[in-house]
Amino acid sequence: MSLNIAVLATGDELINGEMADTNTSRIATILGTQGYVISESRVVGDVEVEIERALLDLADRREVVIVTGGLGPTEDDLTARVAARAFDRRLVLNDEALQQIRAFFAHRHMEMNPRNEKQALLPQKSVILGNRLGTAPGFTLRNRNCDLFFLPGVPKEMVDMLEQQVLPRLLERSGGNAPMQERILKVFGLSEPRVEEVFNTEAMPEGITLAFGVDFPFVHVKLRASGETAGDLLDRAELKTRRLLEPYVFGTGQETLAGNVARMLTDAGLTIALAESCTGGEVAQMLTEIPGASAFFERGAITYANTAKHEWLQVPVDILQNPGAVSEACALAMANGIRNAANSDLGLAITGIAGPDGGTPQKPVGTVFLALCDGKTEQVKGYRFSGDRQRVRRMASCMALEWVRRYLIARM
Amino acid sequence: MSLNIAVLATGDELINGEMADTNTSRIATILGTQGYVISESRVVGDVEVEIERALLDLADRREVVIVTGGLGPTEDDLTARVAARAFDRRLVLNDEALQQIRAFFAHRHMEMNPRNEKQALLPQKSVILGNRLGTAPGFTLRNRNCDLFFLPGVPKEMVDMLEQQVLPRLLERSGGNAPMQERILKVFGLSEPRVEEVFNTEAMPEGITLAFGVDFPFVHVKLRASGETAGDLLDRAELKTRRLLEPYVFGTGQETLAGNVARMLTDAGLTIALAESCTGGEVAQMLTEIPGASAFFERGAITYANTAKHEWLQVPVDILQNPGAVSEACALAMANGIRNAANSDLGLAITGIAGPDGGTPQKPVGTVFLALCDGKTEQVKGYRFSGDRQRVRRMASCMALEWVRRYLIARM
Repeated sequence: MSLNIAVLATGDELINGEMADTNTSRIATILGTQGYVISESRVVGDVEVEIERALLDLADRREVVIVTGGLGPTEDDLTARVAARAFDRRLVLNDEALQQIRAFFAHRHMEMNPRNEKQALLPQKSVILGNRLGTAPGFTLRNRNCDLFFLPGVPKEMVDMLEQQVLPRLLERSGGNAPMQERILKVFGLSEPRVEEVFNTEAMPEGITLAFGVDFPFVHVKLRASGETAGDLLDRAELKTRRLLEPYVFGTGQETLAGNVARMLTDAGLTIALAESCTGGEVAQMLTEIPGASAFFERGAITYANTAKHEWLQVPVDILQNPGAVSEACALAMANGIRNAANSDLGLAITGIAGPDGGTPQKPVGTVFLALCDGKTEQVKGYRFSGDRQRVRRMASCMALEWVRRYLIARM
Repeated sequence: MSLNIAVLATGDELINGEMADTNTSRIATILGTQGYVISESRVVGDVEVEIERALLDLADRREVVIVTGGLGPTEDDLTARVAARAFDRRLVLNDEALQQIRAFFAHRHMEMNPRNEKQALLPQKSVILGNRLGTAPGFTLRNRNCDLFFLPGVPKEMVDMLEQQVLPRLLERSGGNAPMQERILKVFGLSEPRVEEVFNTEAMPEGITLAFGVDFPFVHVKLRASGETAGDLLDRAELKTRRLLEPYVFGTGQETLAGNVARMLTDAGLTIALAESCTGGEVAQMLTEIPGASAFFERGAITYANTAKHEWLQVPVDILQNPGAVSEACALAMANGIRNAANSDLGLAITGIAGPDGGTPQKPVGTVFLALCDGKTEQVKGYRFSGDRQRVRRMASCMALEWVRRYLIARM
C-alpha cells in the first residue's frame, strides 16, 4: 500500500544559498528503494512562523511527514518547540531522551554542556527515535491521520535513523510489506542511450519495471518489482540484465567499482602496483580509499616527468623519444616496469593527455593508453575519451579499474 | 528592499529519488549574491493537482515565486497549462514564443518537431522570457501582488534566464539597486566555532554583515555589504578579516587550496615531488587536477609497503623498524628521499594511519606526520586528525597543501 508522504527540511543555510539541501534527495532515494514516492518536499528557514505553517499545512494533507533539522542545542533549533505549539501540546522533559543524551556524552568521556538538556524537551506524547550517532534524539508524534517524524539535519544521523526507525514504521503502516523492491545494477563502459537500446528489444519478466540513471561515468539500471514474488522476479530480471549487458555490469546496490576491485584482489590474494601519468594518482586514490587496501596495494608511481618514467619504471629512453610517453609502447613498458619495481602480481599503467593543453593532431586531448601485465600475459590499448580534464581523467581511471576487474573475472 | 520569495521545482524525477533537485540551491546562491533570501522552497512531481495547489498557495503568500521545470514539449510538461488554470487565464499561442522556438531550430539547421509548438502555448497576459540556450521559452505573469517566473528545469538554461531576465526584474521591483554584495574568504585549519569566536570580540566596519559556512575541511567567512560604498566596505572588511585570521585564509571566491598552491608554485618557478603513504595519492590527485600541473609537478610516490619507502625514498631500514613508518623520522626521510629521487626543489611527505584498522594506543587512527624540505631547511610535525578514513585522509591532504602554501608565502 502506498502512502502520501511529504518531506520538510528546515534551516536558514538551506535557503540562503550557503548549502544545498541534500537530505530530501537522500530520503527520496531511501524511501524509493521500498517503493515509496514523496508527494511533496519543502524547505523553510529557521523561522517559527514558517515552520509552524508548513507543519500544519502538511499534517493536514499528508499521511506521513518527515521533518529534518532544528533538533540541536542552540537558540535557532526551534523544531520541537514549534511542533508542540502547532499541535497543541506542552513541551515536556522526556526522561528517555535525556538519558540517551547523557549516555552519548558519558560513552565518549565528554562533558555534557547544560545546553544539551534542551534537546530532551519534546512535545507531549511523542515517542523518541534514538540517535546512535549524535546527541539529538528524534521523535515521532501522531496528529489525526498524520504520522510526523522529526529527525536531525546531520545527514549521517538522519539516514541511520530513517533506515533503522522510520522505515519499519512506514512498512507497518502500509500493511507489513514493502510496496516495492528495487535492485540497482551498475554499468560502466556503455552510454545511457546504448543501455536503454538493449532493453528496447528484450522484454523483462512480467511485473518488472525498468528505470535508468546516470552517475558519471556509470549508468544505473533500476529493476523494480512488488508483491510477494518480487524477490524471485528481481533475481530473474537481474540474471537476464547481466546476460544482456555482459560484461558491462560491475556491481549492484551500494557496491562501487573500486570497492569491488579491492575485494576481488583481496580474495584472490593478489597484489597490484600502479604507474600513473595523466590520471595523477586518481586510481591509487580510489583504491586506497577502501579500508584494508594495504593487503593488495604495494605501491604507486605518479610519473609525470619522463625522467621519473625512466628511473622508476625503466621505460627505455628510445621509447620516450619515439613513439613518446603517450603510446602503447610506453604504457606497456610502464606496466612491466612498475610490476618489476614493486615485485607485485599485477602491474597497471595509464598514460595520456588529459588536457586542456598538450594535444596534437595525432594525439588529441583525451588520448589515453592503458596497459596491464602479470608477468605472463600483457594487454595494452588506446582510447579517445571526450570531455574536459576532469572527465578524461575520471574515464581513464575507471577504465583502468575495469580492466583489473575483467582480468580477475577471467582468471576465476 | 528585500522581497518575500519562494521557489517551486517540479518534476517526478526530483521526488522519486532518481535525481536531487539542484536548481533550488542554484537559485538561492544566485539570489543570495544580491542579498535576496528565499523564504521557502518546494518540490512537487508532475501531477496537475499538486502543481496547481502549490502555485495558488505560494502566489497567495509570497511576492515572488520562481518555478522551474515542466516547460518541455512532452505530455508530462504541465506547467503552462496548470498555471493558466490556477490563475483563471486562457492558454493561448504566444507568437513571440513561437518565433523564438522556430528561430532556435533554424539557427541550428535542425528540423522543428511539431510537438515543440506546444511550448508556445502560454497563459494569457504572460510576458515571455527568452531562452538563448534551449527550446523552452520561460514566461512571467502577475497575479495580484505576486510576480511568478516560470523557467525551464535544465540547469544551464534556468541559470542563464535567472541571471539575465529575472534578476533585473527583481532589482527593479525592490527599488533599482542590488540589496547586497558578497565576498567569501576561505579558511583552513580553524574550526567554525573558533572562526566565529574571533569575530565575537572584533567588530567589522559598520555596514558589514557576517555569515559563516562549512565545506569540509574548509570554513567560509562571508562578508556582505550593500549600497554604493559596498565595494570599499568589503575591501576594508577583507583586510581586517585576513589580519584577524592570519595565516588561515587561503583564498577568496572561487579559488581552491590546490589551485592556489599550483599557481604559486608555477609563479615561483619551483618544482615539487610527493611521497604519500596514508593519503594514497590524494595530494597528487588534487594538484594534478589543475591544468598545467606538469610545470611544477615532477613525480609522486605512493609508498604503501615499507620496501617501497626503502627502495624509492631511501628510508633507512632502521627507521622503518623503529620508530616505524608512522613517525617524524620516517616522514623526514621520505621528504628528503623523494626530493633527491626527483631532483625537485621541494619534497613533501605524508605518512600516517587513516584507519579504520592499524591504530595502536601510542599511534591511534588519525595519527599523521607531515614533512617538507627544500634541501636547506626542513620541517616535520605530527597531527591527530579525527573522523573516519575519508576525513583523516582529506585533512592530511589539505594540511600538506597548506604547508606548501605557507612555505611559499614565507619565501616571497
